[in-house]
Amino acid sequence: MSQPAIGVCYYPEHWDEQRWETDIARMAEIGIAYVRIGDFCWSRLEKRPGELDFSWMLRAMDMFHRHGIKLMVATPTAGPPRWMLDKHPDMVAIDANGHERRFGSRRQYDFSHAGYREECARIVTLLADAVGQHPALMAWQTDNEYGCHNTTCSWSPAARVEFQRWLAARYGTVEALNLAWGNVFWSLEYNDFTQVDLPNLTVTEPNPAAQLDFRRFSSDQVGTFNALQVNILKAARPDLPVSHNYMGRFTEFDHFKVAETLDFVTWDSYPVGFLEMGDEPAEAKAQYLRQGEPDFQGLHHDIYRAAGRGRWWIIEQQPGPVNWAPYNPDPLPGMARLWAWEAFAHGAEVVAYFRWRQFPAAQEQMHAGLLRVDDQPAPAYHEAKQVIEELRLTGIAGEARKGRVGIVFDYESEWAWQIQPQAKGFTHVGHVNAVYVALRKRGIDIDILPPTTASFAGYDLVIIPALFAWTDALREAVTSFEGHLLIGPRTGSKTGDFTIPQNLAPDLPSNLLDVKVMRVDSTRPEHGVAVKGGGTAQLWRERLETRARVEIEDEEGFPVLVSQGKVFYVGASGDRALVQRIVGQLLEEANIVPLALPAGVRCRVRGGFRVYVNYANGVAHLAPAPDEAGYVLGDATMPAAGVTVARLATPD
Amino acid sequence: MSQPAIGVCYYPEHWDEQRWETDIARMAEIGIAYVRIGDFCWSRLEKRPGELDFSWMLRAMDMFHRHGIKLMVATPTAGPPRWMLDKHPDMVAIDANGHERRFGSRRQYDFSHAGYREECARIVTLLADAVGQHPALMAWQTDNEYGCHNTTCSWSPAARVEFQRWLAARYGTVEALNLAWGNVFWSLEYNDFTQVDLPNLTVTEPNPAAQLDFRRFSSDQVGTFNALQVNILKAARPDLPVSHNYMGRFTEFDHFKVAETLDFVTWDSYPVGFLEMGDEPAEAKAQYLRQGEPDFQGLHHDIYRAAGRGRWWIIEQQPGPVNWAPYNPDPLPGMARLWAWEAFAHGAEVVAYFRWRQFPAAQEQMHAGLLRVDDQPAPAYHEAKQVIEELRLTGIAGEARKGRVGIVFDYESEWAWQIQPQAKGFTHVGHVNAVYVALRKRGIDIDILPPTTASFAGYDLVIIPALFAWTDALREAVTSFEGHLLIGPRTGSKTGDFTIPQNLAPDLPSNLLDVKVMRVDSTRPEHGVAVKGGGTAQLWRERLETRARVEIEDEEGFPVLVSQGKVFYVGASGDRALVQRIVGQLLEEANIVPLALPAGVRCRVRGGFRVYVNYANGVAHLAPAPDEAGYVLGDATMPAAGVTVARLATPD
Amino acid sequence: MSQPAIGVCYYPEHWDEQRWETDIARMAEIGIAYVRIGDFCWSRLEKRPGELDFSWMLRAMDMFHRHGIKLMVATPTAGPPRWMLDKHPDMVAIDANGHERRFGSRRQYDFSHAGYREECARIVTLLADAVGQHPALMAWQTDNEYGCHNTTCSWSPAARVEFQRWLAARYGTVEALNLAWGNVFWSLEYNDFTQVDLPNLTVTEPNPAAQLDFRRFSSDQVGTFNALQVNILKAARPDLPVSHNYMGRFTEFDHFKVAETLDFVTWDSYPVGFLEMGDEPAEAKAQYLRQGEPDFQGLHHDIYRAAGRGRWWIIEQQPGPVNWAPYNPDPLPGMARLWAWEAFAHGAEVVAYFRWRQFPAAQEQMHAGLLRVDDQPAPAYHEAKQVIEELRLTGIAGEARKGRVGIVFDYESEWAWQIQPQAKGFTHVGHVNAVYVALRKRGIDIDILPPTTASFAGYDLVIIPALFAWTDALREAVTSFEGHLLIGPRTGSKTGDFTIPQNLAPDLPSNLLDVKVMRVDSTRPEHGVAVKGGGTAQLWRERLETRARVEIEDEEGFPVLVSQGKVFYVGASGDRALVQRIVGQLLEEANIVPLALPAGVRCRVRGGFRVYVNYANGVAHLAPAPDEAGYVLGDATMPAAGVTVARLATPD
Repeated sequence: MSQPAIGVCYYPEHWDEQRWETDIARMAEIGIAYVRIGDFCWSRLEKRPGELDFSWMLRAMDMFHRHGIKLMVATPTAGPPRWMLDKHPDMVAIDANGHERRFGSRRQYDFSHAGYREECARIVTLLADAVGQHPALMAWQTDNEYGCHNTTCSWSPAARVEFQRWLAARYGTVEALNLAWGNVFWSLEYNDFTQVDLPNLTVTEPNPAAQLDFRRFSSDQVGTFNALQVNILKAARPDLPVSHNYMGRFTEFDHFKVAETLDFVTWDSYPVGFLEMGDEPAEAKAQYLRQGEPDFQGLHHDIYRAAGRGRWWIIEQQPGPVNWAPYNPDPLPGMARLWAWEAFAHGAEVVAYFRWRQFPAAQEQMHAGLLRVDDQPAPAYHEAKQVIEELRLTGIAGEARKGRVGIVFDYESEWAWQIQPQAKGFTHVGHVNAVYVALRKRGIDIDILPPTTASFAGYDLVIIPALFAWTDALREAVTSFEGHLLIGPRTGSKTGDFTIPQNLAPDLPSNLLDVKVMRVDSTRPEHGVAVKGGGTAQLWRERLETRARVEIEDEEGFPVLVSQGKVFYVGASGDRALVQRIVGQLLEEANIVPLALPAGVRCRVRGGFRVYVNYANGVAHLAPAPDEAGYVLGDATMPAAGVTVARLATPD
Repeated sequence: MSQPAIGVCYYPEHWDEQRWETDIARMAEIGIAYVRIGDFCWSRLEKRPGELDFSWMLRAMDMFHRHGIKLMVATPTAGPPRWMLDKHPDMVAIDANGHERRFGSRRQYDFSHAGYREECARIVTLLADAVGQHPALMAWQTDNEYGCHNTTCSWSPAARVEFQRWLAARYGTVEALNLAWGNVFWSLEYNDFTQVDLPNLTVTEPNPAAQLDFRRFSSDQVGTFNALQVNILKAARPDLPVSHNYMGRFTEFDHFKVAETLDFVTWDSYPVGFLEMGDEPAEAKAQYLRQGEPDFQGLHHDIYRAAGRGRWWIIEQQPGPVNWAPYNPDPLPGMARLWAWEAFAHGAEVVAYFRWRQFPAAQEQMHAGLLRVDDQPAPAYHEAKQVIEELRLTGIAGEARKGRVGIVFDYESEWAWQIQPQAKGFTHVGHVNAVYVALRKRGIDIDILPPTTASFAGYDLVIIPALFAWTDALREAVTSFEGHLLIGPRTGSKTGDFTIPQNLAPDLPSNLLDVKVMRVDSTRPEHGVAVKGGGTAQLWRERLETRARVEIEDEEGFPVLVSQGKVFYVGASGDRALVQRIVGQLLEEANIVPLALPAGVRCRVRGGFRVYVNYANGVAHLAPAPDEAGYVLGDATMPAAGVTVARLATPD
Repeated sequence: MSQPAIGVCYYPEHWDEQRWETDIARMAEIGIAYVRIGDFCWSRLEKRPGELDFSWMLRAMDMFHRHGIKLMVATPTAGPPRWMLDKHPDMVAIDANGHERRFGSRRQYDFSHAGYREECARIVTLLADAVGQHPALMAWQTDNEYGCHNTTCSWSPAARVEFQRWLAARYGTVEALNLAWGNVFWSLEYNDFTQVDLPNLTVTEPNPAAQLDFRRFSSDQVGTFNALQVNILKAARPDLPVSHNYMGRFTEFDHFKVAETLDFVTWDSYPVGFLEMGDEPAEAKAQYLRQGEPDFQGLHHDIYRAAGRGRWWIIEQQPGPVNWAPYNPDPLPGMARLWAWEAFAHGAEVVAYFRWRQFPAAQEQMHAGLLRVDDQPAPAYHEAKQVIEELRLTGIAGEARKGRVGIVFDYESEWAWQIQPQAKGFTHVGHVNAVYVALRKRGIDIDILPPTTASFAGYDLVIIPALFAWTDALREAVTSFEGHLLIGPRTGSKTGDFTIPQNLAPDLPSNLLDVKVMRVDSTRPEHGVAVKGGGTAQLWRERLETRARVEIEDEEGFPVLVSQGKVFYVGASGDRALVQRIVGQLLEEANIVPLALPAGVRCRVRGGFRVYVNYANGVAHLAPAPDEAGYVLGDATMPAAGVTVARLATPD
């Protein structure tokens, strides 16, 4: 793999054509290697139905080419022009309350609308025809940020019809559907697939199995919508990779499954905005106000590295204050550099800043760019330039090192617990994040494992937190695994049809682990119960029936952690202390020696280098790790927002 | 009256027919005497319109009969099948925001929809024909939990037409309606009943009189819907009693009025879920997390005993964790037994647990049963068995003893103050509950008195808190009463037409009590004013004009409690201390000697026995009361969730 | 100008005609000079379409005339009768969620509905014909409380068509609109004005420029609706003044612009209700529970004095507890007097209490009047009488003294920051209020300056806080001003088209002030940064590029206040301490000597008198100011709710 590089997003259509040359020359001058164009320009490609104009885009591409910059061209389908609505008045999505999602911003389209799909196929075909052979073109992007603003699901007539078809394909007969969903309950039985309504606006909650199938269907609609574009682009240029830009904290569709038709994935990383919008505790919001939460980026890098089968970019990197959170802090000086370095450490090929110059009008006018509205450099301009120089200096390259620890992450599990939390706030992501953070504070490199993983070979420890239902692959992986396993809580507590397994959770072969969840005690977080030896079980406490070894029990005498050989089951959600304690015990069992990192510092190994980043507000002092052979960038004393790169004594 | 008994709810249609025999034999074995079946099985009785099948139900009934178990059969109308919607697309209720309440859960029907009423009449007739003569049948239940999920009111076209008819019947002429509602205000006058709209989606609040009439109408619709079924069932089997299962904390319809056509009432008691969903203070939620609020059950027992004119059951008793609250704690061991005993102490004939076995699919899959999904006993199985044995042992029977204290409870008053709280959070229920709790902590047996009570004879003290408007009956009862009366706050502050009485509140004959409410000071609870001698007046402070004796005044010199002979008027809402103080004073005036109960312990007398239950988290020590002649179950040292039964020296 | 006077609102149609004479005689007896009638009586003027009856109103007017009381007659258009809906089913407004705003309360009409406008023109013409020549008539009021209950904006088909017309008139071509709004962004371009939708129900936020134009349009619709009535009334009686009653805290339409067609303005002052409904901090809600926030009334008096070009009334003055807040406290004895005196001090011509007698039915039944429902005097009756006597006694008259300090207040700025707060809670009103309060605590008389002010001549200090965009007038005023100027934060940060100025905020000629806002740090209020020398910068901190003098900087070294000559720019929102510090510094620079007022006391000068009012809960002690020549009412020791009037040594 070649050396990682810096890119930027540019919208030629936003600026007078006479400014293009200056802009592009300036990019080339500081070493920007990649530029993304094209997203949201449909009204300029096709001002009125059939009135096509690709000439301006080609002129811009020529200019980039002259300056040696490579281009990713995005399809413009995330922003259908207003005339589209006149052609297809029912193309807009319907929200869960039955309201139309109207024109006037973006992503208003319904994934299930056949007419709009045809329009997309048409414009993508035309785009591929028009610019697909351009020498500056090196990759495609489909659409933009699927799922943004909760747009994955639509409760429209079009979605209803497609959902019925999807169900018919899945179940074959309506009797099979009734059985799978348990529709005998409350007389919910259907006589016919055409009777199936979307699960919204019901008196009390709809059947969880119906809800989950609707979520699966909605995710699949994103997949087929995306595949339609990929197929056209691949037909035009089989040699060019196709990507899509994912977002942070979005779980409405299965990013692993959608990525199966992509060559690589990108994501849009806005650390400060994400922290402000998220549900992190107030202390974290105060402490990391201008940096973002230290593990949020890493977790997403690792998820999307898994989704891209190793190949991924940041295509939109926050450069300064954004506009879309309730509050939009100015990042700490140096963070635009730190975020890029951290992404590279996790294996990013390219980090592209969003956007070249702040646009003074419309919705994102308060969103910073590398340049200000008055064309002067904003702080990130200088930081981007610095990263370009440092990449050259260090010569970092190669792949992110494979971790010794894997964590299973599963979109369906996230949907399942949103549908049926049983304890308010119980989520899959929350449980994955808790173990991720506990490991990352100890300097452990992690790989995220999709639910399609059929073997855990090569890992010393695999953690499967709050998994909804066993997939065939995971069952196989678990059964054949020779390393240490940490499972639970709530893992395997449902069948794929969202019923309780006849044999009760965690539904493992009893020779693997003799434990049954008899029932669950779900309580407000403040009603937690102390655990003997330290930590608190809270929110979710399973009553376990077990003949396995009880490793940890709570002050009321209920087992919290049980084990049988190398298989551990945890039957409760824990506070930070309990999770760290359990993770610590498992690392020890698995002979994985953690690093002693200062608070706020994280690190990851790539291509023979260990990159340290300092999210703390003050100076941090590194203790050199035994496997390191000195620093190639920065040193042991890291300022706030500092980056230090150590060379490993023995490369991977 | 025969001895009370234990029952359970069972859904034969949920299970393979070959499991029925085992299940029923097991019930019989531990002594379960009553089983309810039938609610929500419409799609199995009538798979498609007219395609009827009662055979499976009859086979199940035969089996119960063979095992000596008596059956309550519920009509299936709370869960119309999906095909009903194809026949009657407009049968669904419309919520206050104008949204359809769609198929996919339950209770989606509109009480005012004539077509659906006909369908109900049809299926109930067919059901009565098919199973009405079965020897195991001992009672009916109509529908299930009227009002659940806020389903009493519908803002549909059907409801609008029926409301207009209801108004025409009530007022005769539109001029009378305009006058009663004060429609000259804001030009709200109608020319015709057909102009009357439902009171939703207005710019600011609708006329309170219009809102109250809509609430009365909606309640009456439940009544006529219910009566339709009762009449059919009575026609088929005049000898069998008909019941309906009420819920906790539901006040949307007048449970007294609806019960007038029932032979007895039942209710569904979920103490832990109710506490979690309720607005009790955080301390109570923490302290009684696994028990439920100690007075919540008692209050409902007493209300529904009044509604059933003495005859009532628990038809659904929480057996373990439920699924429908944000958090669903595991009850303390012993609570399933305690709750049953407490219900029996208040006069219940039967306590039936919900349900026999946890159903692994659909919406209630996380709701415990007596058996787990894997068919093993859950804790409540053993506790139910224990209660059956203890009932036999103690021989408790007879009726709940008539109290010396009565409290007037009135659904219209609850609606009135929801419509016009004037101080946010001012409710009728809240004021009733405050005096109820203050009395129950002192071991006082209470009777709840409906607003149709025309005489208070037999009581030593009657309390009328926050009564919206005097009914003719209550005016008569008050005037002729010779015991002590505690009235207010806000009692009698409106006419039945929701206007302020010309003579101002409390609108009593001035020879009874010389007091007028000049105006009201309504403030946030935190802005309360201390009361001389102890306690705080808060939320609601009336400015009284009075020549009666001022018993208590606040620190600002405003009268809080005034009296004239045995009639006391309280002009403020109080904190717990003030309410306890006033209640204490009235008990003393009325010569009612309280019991000294440990914190968390409650008791009630039935059939010569006093049953004590311990809601506290630790051991409680009873002081034997002077009227007791020793314990027949448990003793003076009560563990958490303990039950102690004392025999009275002199039975009632 | 003649002496100020007391009035009252009366609804003859609410009472039996035989009570009118007693009521009116009683008003005359205590000296009530003005009465408003007519608002909301449409159903009595026109019971059915075309069935007109003005006779009762004329009889009432005759009776007032006999008692020497002058009348303001309001048009009844704020409460269209129910039959109007049958004539014009689509006359109701549609809220932002797409719901109809139905009949049943008031203000349900859509300002853009042509049919309803015609009906209004018709009834106003008929009213003017019927009563316009009556000798008791001295003024008109159009409609009632435009904008109440968020009724300024409607998202109806009628509004959509009118909005398109308004845009066509503003922009001429759709290309100009696309350019102004920056519609190239996200492919938001229109081909035609008929494509423009209202900016609601979009997926994410609509274009801020579109939103602002919709707010401007909606405000203009109020203006043309009002002008229609004014023109008819003026045609009938060119000599009579026309007014409209504004409300407190309403900013949905431009009150300055709408007032341009009025002869004077009135407003409805409910100090206790406003505080309860507002977002004032909890301490203020506790401290001023029974008084209202001390500066709320003054600010509105000053805004509406500006709107009325000096001529204004209170037409509805709170007399006791109201009904429309979550909690409705009883005002402190004396407040009904204090509020009237304070209004007179700010220049009010008339203060009229709302209403004569509490109406026992309908929505406002819990709203106090001067008389109780039982016809006995409520406290405000006596206080109104006292004010009448005191006005006579003191002989106060003349105009409110012109202030030395002016503050620019601008409705568009309020809309702009609601549309794009960038920091949640950032408002124009909040910034205006902060400096207003800081000045008023120091006893400074203030004039509010509309954005049409083209000269600041006569002021020593002008403050322009958080102004959205420079108007031509203000640019001129700023450039030619010779006094001290305090500008910012955020002032001049947008063009009128809602784009960032090419030269960046504050967009002033650099010879006036060399400062540029490079970017903004927006943070939660709790993440403020201390300022060197005292106070905290919070919520909004601009990163300034400047060569001007740095007066104040924060602990992180960022400039907070910079100056160049007499022009000061503040680049941050401040806590109370910082705002007071900056205002204090500016007063000193401008040689304005503040008064030393006790906490809770405010004062204002009118016609040679300084009126002090005491909002505090206890006694306040005044220090006589050097320009005073003794007290004509009250003295230096002011009780709670006290009023003291000092005579100035030298009248204005």
